[in-house]
Amino acid sequence: MPDIARLSTADADFSTRLDDLLAWESVSDREVQRTVEDILDTVRTRGDAALLEYTARFDRWQPEAAAALAIPAARLAQAAEGIPLAQRDALAAAAERIRTYAEHQKMQDWSYREPDGTLLGQKVTPLDRVGLYVPGGKAAYPSSVLMNAIPAKVAGVAELVMVVPTPDGQQNELVLAAAHIAGVDKAFAVGGAQAVAALAYGTESVPACDKIVGPGNIYVATAKRAVFGQVGIDMVAGPSEILILCDGGTDPDWIAMDLFSQAEHDEDAQSILVAWDADYLDRVAASIDKLLPTLERRDIIATALKDRGALVLARDMDDAADVANRIAPEHLELSVEDPQALAAKIRNAGAIFMGRHTAEALGDYCAGPNHVLPTSGTARFSSPLGVYDFQKRSSLIMASPAGSAALATTASVLARGEGLTAHARSAEYRGRDEV
Amino acid sequence: MPDIARLSTADADFSTRLDDLLAWESVSDREVQRTVEDILDTVRTRGDAALLEYTARFDRWQPEAAAALAIPAARLAQAAEGIPLAQRDALAAAAERIRTYAEHQKMQDWSYREPDGTLLGQKVTPLDRVGLYVPGGKAAYPSSVLMNAIPAKVAGVAELVMVVPTPDGQQNELVLAAAHIAGVDKAFAVGGAQAVAALAYGTESVPACDKIVGPGNIYVATAKRAVFGQVGIDMVAGPSEILILCDGGTDPDWIAMDLFSQAEHDEDAQSILVAWDADYLDRVAASIDKLLPTLERRDIIATALKDRGALVLARDMDDAADVANRIAPEHLELSVEDPQALAAKIRNAGAIFMGRHTAEALGDYCAGPNHVLPTSGTARFSSPLGVYDFQKRSSLIMASPAGSAALATTASVLARGEGLTAHARSAEYRGRDEV
Repeated sequence: MPDIARLSTADADFSTRLDDLLAWESVSDREVQRTVEDILDTVRTRGDAALLEYTARFDRWQPEAAAALAIPAARLAQAAEGIPLAQRDALAAAAERIRTYAEHQKMQDWSYREPDGTLLGQKVTPLDRVGLYVPGGKAAYPSSVLMNAIPAKVAGVAELVMVVPTPDGQQNELVLAAAHIAGVDKAFAVGGAQAVAALAYGTESVPACDKIVGPGNIYVATAKRAVFGQVGIDMVAGPSEILILCDGGTDPDWIAMDLFSQAEHDEDAQSILVAWDADYLDRVAASIDKLLPTLERRDIIATALKDRGALVLARDMDDAADVANRIAPEHLELSVEDPQALAAKIRNAGAIFMGRHTAEALGDYCAGPNHVLPTSGTARFSSPLGVYDFQKRSSLIMASPAGSAALATTASVLARGEGLTAHARSAEYRGRDEV
Repeated sequence: MPDIARLSTADADFSTRLDDLLAWESVSDREVQRTVEDILDTVRTRGDAALLEYTARFDRWQPEAAAALAIPAARLAQAAEGIPLAQRDALAAAAERIRTYAEHQKMQDWSYREPDGTLLGQKVTPLDRVGLYVPGGKAAYPSSVLMNAIPAKVAGVAELVMVVPTPDGQQNELVLAAAHIAGVDKAFAVGGAQAVAALAYGTESVPACDKIVGPGNIYVATAKRAVFGQVGIDMVAGPSEILILCDGGTDPDWIAMDLFSQAEHDEDAQSILVAWDADYLDRVAASIDKLLPTLERRDIIATALKDRGALVLARDMDDAADVANRIAPEHLELSVEDPQALAAKIRNAGAIFMGRHTAEALGDYCAGPNHVLPTSGTARFSSPLGVYDFQKRSSLIMASPAGSAALATTASVLARGEGLTAHARSAEYRGRDEV
């Protein structure tokens, strides 16, 4: 049998064991913190010169001058031309679906008028300029470029600036092609905390942005946290997770492969299956045993399953739904006969994949919804990345003379109750000429 | 003439001087950081016992047992009964307007079906439980209770938990009354970083929440930043600011009082007026001189105007709008003849107060829009607090068999391009039985 925890919600220690399994602290130790602070300060004060030095040191690549850090639009277009047709078509098809879905998320202005003529509402505006961090090297994910860039462009962001490291001078053609297809406006061959600093503060070459999105390693994540406030950030993601609820009617090979697809990301990834049929859990365990050896990334998968995976026996479907709401998983597969009935019971999940045919992997690439999702239980209070993350609202208040007179009475009483008499008098001025 | 900076956008050093004026770093020094970390750890491990100890130490109030920390619902109702009628009516009127406005912000589920039967969409769910921090003592703002609590209840948050310190055993009747009127579900007489810890981790008495909102001092702000990730937080606010654009047609006394109303919050508050008529700036300066001595909080106001205020001469209205977009103020007053035309040029502002009769103070209390707004230029990328902050979205994906077969092709190509073969095979399983 595979090396993966077996739990039952009926166990007295279930709650504790589940907590242990879910426990995750992103470790950003003091040393990382200090290194990142140094890099941020240096880029803030020395600009491009600092970018060149850090790039030489961390990426082992020495551009001749700052101008060489820019990746021209023509280079992105050339990458899109140069990749195999099947990949270009797949990227274009995914981009189209992501764009169509994103269009549904656009927030709109709204307002209403009161009988006295006072107007209230909110105005929605796209962010002026957004920075997109894209990891380079081994973990280069063109799908991530599409998922981060397209909602920003749909929102109407005027300038989308991509940064991507070029380790050992190597650029990733798929990433550059995806940037072209997604409509990235400017790109720079710089990565790490130094790239985050450049996007936050601006340098001679890199324009300062209003928000920074996109995944990265611990240095990138720490830098994003540090510049938060100066600029907006998307989220600081933990390891990827999947929770599958299955009624026992899905081919156990499919479910085993779905668990693998999450576990193959890295050793910290989390794959949990909850079923209310002990035999079915055994069958999935057998499929895991059978299929694991056939996978390229079997070592990573085995470690992830051993350290953070579980097969959980629930009492029934409602009990399983409770487990899901408690975990608030990033990805939730409802591999059951009536997924819509079960989805109605789910309060906390980043994305819900409904029905036996909806593999989570479809959502990672091309179903349409964003694959940037809240991790580590943060789906309790946060949402998938979307167009709304690249728009912001401004409240609108236009009081008519009659309206301001009425409001002034209330405001004055409350302001004086708080001891703020300038507030009260400012309101009263507007009431006076009407009363 | 009053002690307030006079700038002109035509000055060669305008940009630098404006940057200096806007510069603000919330100072959370190492010592505060360490104190807060200690408090968080202690409450996390020792629960109510730690709350009692910190309350005795920091609030100089010794409840007999943890049960005494709870403020019963009857106590809130009693406060609402006990305050003067004018105040109760004003709180009720403000609450009603805030609620009506908030109802317009509720996000709704959406979905669409593709021709092959695949369903895509997003489901919107309220947060289960929210914590509301309310400052106690001198800076006790009942309006802040209404502004934070009402959107949460409109969103459908099942349990809203308020914490408020009780310095020297003194409770603020207006705050308790506002909590009753706003529909707070549970209340506890605890404040500071220890209250934030209790809301984030839970204790025997205080239930753990999914998100914590509300203003507080540097210890509260530092604690909120530290627990972010474990729970959601609203924002870490800087000093309050107002920017007024005026065409010279508004009574200068009104504008002076509007500047005061912001400056009276505290010495760090920022009040800036931009006009394109030098004479008008002189007239406002004269009004400042005339009115300042009549104000209760004149010392705070004078300091704030001296350290962080400015009267700015712009070339014309468009130039003034550029200044506003650059500052991205928390509060923006458009005290002009045609405020709607000018508002159309504004991209970055927390709340826009349009027209000569719309004093910012009306918005602080009762106009309807929230007074919790992005400060320190963060309106470039963030929004007023609203119902949407107490709801979250879950993506919905239900692929039909035909739909999943089509998606599997694209997903498989992209997954293999990223070297993730378990992803590819998981997708391919779903395609196979249909192809």
